[in-house]
Amino acid sequence: MPAWRDELSVAEAEFLAERLIAGLPEPEFREAEATVAPLGLRGTGDLGCIIERASGTVVIVETTTNSILGEVTGLGDLSHASIVFSRDQRYAYVFGRDGGLTKIDLLGRRIVRRVIQGGNSIGGAISQDGKWVAVSNYEPGGVRIFDSDTLDLVADVPATGGSKTVGLVEAPDHRFVWSLFDSDEIWVARFRGPGDLTIHKFTEIGAKPYDAMITPDGRHYVAGLFGEDGMALIDLWDLESGVRRVVDEQGRGDEKLPVYKMPHLEGWAMTNAHSYLPAVGRNRVLCLDGTGFKVFDRVDVHGRPVFVVAAPDGRRLWVNFAYPDNGVVQVIDTQSRRVVKRLEPGPGVMHMEFTPKGERIWISVRDANKVEIYDAYAMTKVGELPVTKPSGIFFTHRAGQLGK
Amino acid sequence: MPAWRDELSVAEAEFLAERLIAGLPEPEFREAEATVAPLGLRGTGDLGCIIERASGTVVIVETTTNSILGEVTGLGDLSHASIVFSRDQRYAYVFGRDGGLTKIDLLGRRIVRRVIQGGNSIGGAISQDGKWVAVSNYEPGGVRIFDSDTLDLVADVPATGGSKTVGLVEAPDHRFVWSLFDSDEIWVARFRGPGDLTIHKFTEIGAKPYDAMITPDGRHYVAGLFGEDGMALIDLWDLESGVRRVVDEQGRGDEKLPVYKMPHLEGWAMTNAHSYLPAVGRNRVLCLDGTGFKVFDRVDVHGRPVFVVAAPDGRRLWVNFAYPDNGVVQVIDTQSRRVVKRLEPGPGVMHMEFTPKGERIWISVRDANKVEIYDAYAMTKVGELPVTKPSGIFFTHRAGQLGK
Repeated sequence: MPAWRDELSVAEAEFLAERLIAGLPEPEFREAEATVAPLGLRGTGDLGCIIERASGTVVIVETTTNSILGEVTGLGDLSHASIVFSRDQRYAYVFGRDGGLTKIDLLGRRIVRRVIQGGNSIGGAISQDGKWVAVSNYEPGGVRIFDSDTLDLVADVPATGGSKTVGLVEAPDHRFVWSLFDSDEIWVARFRGPGDLTIHKFTEIGAKPYDAMITPDGRHYVAGLFGEDGMALIDLWDLESGVRRVVDEQGRGDEKLPVYKMPHLEGWAMTNAHSYLPAVGRNRVLCLDGTGFKVFDRVDVHGRPVFVVAAPDGRRLWVNFAYPDNGVVQVIDTQSRRVVKRLEPGPGVMHMEFTPKGERIWISVRDANKVEIYDAYAMTKVGELPVTKPSGIFFTHRAGQLGK
Repeated sequence: MPAWRDELSVAEAEFLAERLIAGLPEPEFREAEATVAPLGLRGTGDLGCIIERASGTVVIVETTTNSILGEVTGLGDLSHASIVFSRDQRYAYVFGRDGGLTKIDLLGRRIVRRVIQGGNSIGGAISQDGKWVAVSNYEPGGVRIFDSDTLDLVADVPATGGSKTVGLVEAPDHRFVWSLFDSDEIWVARFRGPGDLTIHKFTEIGAKPYDAMITPDGRHYVAGLFGEDGMALIDLWDLESGVRRVVDEQGRGDEKLPVYKMPHLEGWAMTNAHSYLPAVGRNRVLCLDGTGFKVFDRVDVHGRPVFVVAAPDGRRLWVNFAYPDNGVVQVIDTQSRRVVKRLEPGPGVMHMEFTPKGERIWISVRDANKVEIYDAYAMTKVGELPVTKPSGIFFTHRAGQLGK
């Protein structure tokens, strides 16, 4: 049994017990790799992580000379895994699908601590001040908040009727916001430390919010709805204004899509003036004005868009697609709103991440076991790294961005 | 003689000779402090620099627990000094008024290299890809470009008729942009490496551009004019569209202000929808719409504004003022466009810098020898550091931001 299993908190032990009683398989753990040497004195502004989903591994990379610096194994089930970074950019918090929350030391190339905080989780967030890490859970529903330094549990917030909890983001001024899939709610929580939690609950926000995003300015929280068309919008600067319905044409319409076909809202791209999001169940990207969240144009694309990623300068959007069109990436010019480039990186394009200032974009190509690196302006390939079944790519500059 | 003086390049030696021939005093140099221990393994995302103008020193700080980590001395004349960071956030490039360009290792707490690249310089920039550092000079005019790794001179771009060169910024896709004060020009240069430089020159752009800024998306370059009212705008996405005159009410009007009374354009704040800039020679902040650069409102303030700084969430603006009103900071709410708070940090408020996600703001109070730290939401003081005659404050997350 790995050493860290001795460090289970009471909450973790209870959770494991519940899971075993419920007949769920015990999560599989792997011991961290034998100690490797730390990287030595270096900056952390050009670091990043790539998730190797199948093997429970995170690959540590740097984007200055485009190289692999190491890997950390033993992270459990990393399907749909996501990552946030500590505010000093030394540590990564990995949210696994199996409820695992793992703190990785990027410079030390090792696991600092790993806790199994829930049974089936779907992402997390780090507070604006970097002190707290929150995780939203499917099973049991609810949100758990941890000290970002120690990963000690500091707050446990059950959901109404045990609802699945999704779309968790951090918001300015000590807040976390999340949606309750089964009870049709959005909760805005202010957490200033253990024992100091207040929650503003919005009910009847629309049927079955399945994911959500926060605008880069931290002002608007938008939840996608699985149970009906449109999206639910909350203005965090004015909670009294309540929930507003926007983007009526966004939805399943008459098609009854399964929930896993609904695009994640991280796929929503915002530039200064506009925002762009994947249309549900259509080969289309929707173009919205920046303040009214009204659709003013639509761009036809190659397949069902998954991620629409805006370059940091807002000039172009890079779009990938769902199976069976997931071998292609299209680039849209935001002024003409036309596709200006079609790329074929290879089978299973999963994710795209721009370098901090946007000179290059990294693309994970799962079924070709590689990450390709493109000049974002010339739109030509300038590098490639071997990575086993890569999915998410996360660079450390996210540490300084709201909602990332 | 300090060891690094043995390392003068031919260009540097020529410059020094020219300076001596012209009867200008030889720049004063100080040896770097005795070797100090490096900081050891740590992240660099929460680091920053504060300029101690009078003593030629840069103080290294961190913003997680708000402490001073060290200082680097021997940087020459740091009046109006500014700083950019390497893309890995380990190194700071300090642009001194005396033409000194110094590369500091934040983790090593030491000078890596220092070159005297011009006689009287006014700021610099680092390329989007982090490879090149450019400096704009008053005397002699023109721009010099250096390898960011070695500080070797890689390009020397003289100005028309030796014009003073100002408002230098980096722009996306391998570009630097600057203005020529004496010849009324703006130059857009594409530099891909030694020997690969092309320049698009705009002439007759308006009388005497004295400073400039680039919008955070890297699209628009705006120069302030000393010789007439209004500002000169270039759309870097469409150079053929030429120069456009905007913000006609911005200018000296009938008052003939000296150039040092013109507010620096770093004092221009942009949020998602709008931008805000200090009115020249008036107790007023101008509010512009984000795309047309048209004034839609004006906010009366306490004195002549110097810096208008927007919180990362765009909700509030923090404003400081010129002498004799430089003991006050006012906070403006961007929705109501009213002053919602007046603070008196102390005499000589010089600069303000938000932490990466905007939970706190640091304020340098020169004549009280301190830097004050405020909770950006409560607008209350939460900390203070002793710093001798502090001026500019620069945090490392700028490394990931266009134009910073």
